[in-house]
Amino acid sequence: MTTYTAINLIARPAAGPVGSELFEVVQKEMPNVGDGQFLVKQNYMSLDPAMFGWMSPDTESYIPPVELGTVMRSSGVGEIVESNHPDFSVGDRVMGMMGWQEYFLTDGTGLNKVTAPLPDETILSVFALPGLTATQGLYSIGKPQKGETLVVSGAAGSVGSIVGQLAKADGLTVIGIVGSDEKANWIVNELGFDGAINYKTDDLAAKLAELTPNGIDIYFENTGGPIQHHVFSRMNAHGRIAVCGMIADYPKAEPDLAPNWIPIIKKRLTIQGFTMPDHFGEVPTLLEKLTPYVMRGQIKHRAHILEGLESAITGLNLFFTGQNKGKLIVKI
Amino acid sequence: MTTYTAINLIARPAAGPVGSELFEVVQKEMPNVGDGQFLVKQNYMSLDPAMFGWMSPDTESYIPPVELGTVMRSSGVGEIVESNHPDFSVGDRVMGMMGWQEYFLTDGTGLNKVTAPLPDETILSVFALPGLTATQGLYSIGKPQKGETLVVSGAAGSVGSIVGQLAKADGLTVIGIVGSDEKANWIVNELGFDGAINYKTDDLAAKLAELTPNGIDIYFENTGGPIQHHVFSRMNAHGRIAVCGMIADYPKAEPDLAPNWIPIIKKRLTIQGFTMPDHFGEVPTLLEKLTPYVMRGQIKHRAHILEGLESAITGLNLFFTGQNKGKLIVKI
Repeated sequence: MTTYTAINLIARPAAGPVGSELFEVVQKEMPNVGDGQFLVKQNYMSLDPAMFGWMSPDTESYIPPVELGTVMRSSGVGEIVESNHPDFSVGDRVMGMMGWQEYFLTDGTGLNKVTAPLPDETILSVFALPGLTATQGLYSIGKPQKGETLVVSGAAGSVGSIVGQLAKADGLTVIGIVGSDEKANWIVNELGFDGAINYKTDDLAAKLAELTPNGIDIYFENTGGPIQHHVFSRMNAHGRIAVCGMIADYPKAEPDLAPNWIPIIKKRLTIQGFTMPDHFGEVPTLLEKLTPYVMRGQIKHRAHILEGLESAITGLNLFFTGQNKGKLIVKI
Repeated sequence: MTTYTAINLIARPAAGPVGSELFEVVQKEMPNVGDGQFLVKQNYMSLDPAMFGWMSPDTESYIPPVELGTVMRSSGVGEIVESNHPDFSVGDRVMGMMGWQEYFLTDGTGLNKVTAPLPDETILSVFALPGLTATQGLYSIGKPQKGETLVVSGAAGSVGSIVGQLAKADGLTVIGIVGSDEKANWIVNELGFDGAINYKTDDLAAKLAELTPNGIDIYFENTGGPIQHHVFSRMNAHGRIAVCGMIADYPKAEPDLAPNWIPIIKKRLTIQGFTMPDHFGEVPTLLEKLTPYVMRGQIKHRAHILEGLESAITGLNLFFTGQNKGKLIVKI
């Protein structure tokens, strides 16, 4: 093999679903591995809602957008097939931002070795971006205390499902917002959430009141949308809101307005946005926090696996339709 | 003298201006001063926007509402005229929550002695609720750094004017939002703000862009209203928003909606509400922080003094009309 496949971003998305015209599938020559470098064969890569931000031209976003004509950004897991690096050996498994491509040449910056005895897709579902994001947001902003009530939107999603399970393991009452009865069933009966609300069919105000009789102490916001107003109105004094995703509002030319700030004073709320790229330096600490929950079997997951690198292009739109069941992963 | 005058709250306000029918002026018998108690003759008391919250029936507010039929809550400064308390002597000057009344019997809980060689009205304008609120919000939430840009609404008000002057003294660029050209002139030419915006007459977006070319790092929100959306849209990454007051929205039956939360993620903003009653335990620390600025002459103020206890009733509505010039104080 002297070439490998990669996918470049070649245009910026408009609001709404993304099309194949934004991407170009290219063949690249296998690189030479220089001193201090190694070559990773990527086995699985992750699709994440954050990608819409990475593709967008908005220079105010949290990390620079992907430059047009370069490989689309993503995290993945793979195996080292060639190494001239003293700390990384052929056969080592590594995780990190490797992009939409079959091979990744690197000096190791930003990559982490994977030693946990778990399959690649579990590593990518639980320990990669979703698990790190869930752990960072829940503990640094949510500050969960046993006995409190947490509501998480996008609760069957890759981040939301981990947030909810961590909070359950910590002794909180956990209610998840989802978009289908199948997902509601999964988070309650498989993951152990205390309740679920289907935002498409339930009476939001009534169901939320029924499921959170003691109000809400922590809101982990992954979606935006009308549920936000209902959750906001039930926040308790000193409540914390971690804003992690607004997928429902990204495609809108005019995003919906948010609740008036009067309750922020009356209840001394804290609303804080965060994104993992600010916290990549804390990854070892976050993994240390997360790993015991995983090893105790408290973090279940399900992966929605797409086959082949090019399936990433259409796979992205599953975030808009909500048809993905669990963490979206591309098997390369 | 065997009686003194007090004013009780006897009804809850509806939205909008408050009327005299909410209050009852009563004569009370001068109390006996028991062991461990002392009697304060109140000289000046403060009117604050927080009073609307204290009068409201909303049990979700930050401190319990004033019970109907009891003395209206307020902070004041006065002199001890009789004492059976080992730590407080006749002639001592004290500050604290003494209510709308001429005399206040207490065991000293929550009162602080005033030793700074400054007039009563300065004490009440700078060291009482406004100065404590400004200091708490600016430093614990705003976390000002030299060279940053701060925008404060209600900038000619008792809290806003101190926030801006503290930030100026710390080396920030400070822009104030006010409701009249007279106030704009005062904060720029007397207090040293870098710029002012008259929200009633200026083109908000254009003027804000002109005055904050490097974006906004800290927003100290005292008013709510349409300016909020403009400020929000110019927040820099890692910006901090202290939500201290929403006076423009309190009288509305349906408060205006707030900006969509997408920028909270993109810019990793923190929005935090606070009220001083949560922080009364920190008053000594806050005074220690604030006092050097005052003693260096960096905190100017102006008091709008109303004469006589009963002037408090109509005085409250000056917050709605914005006609007060500086800190509203009642001389008893």
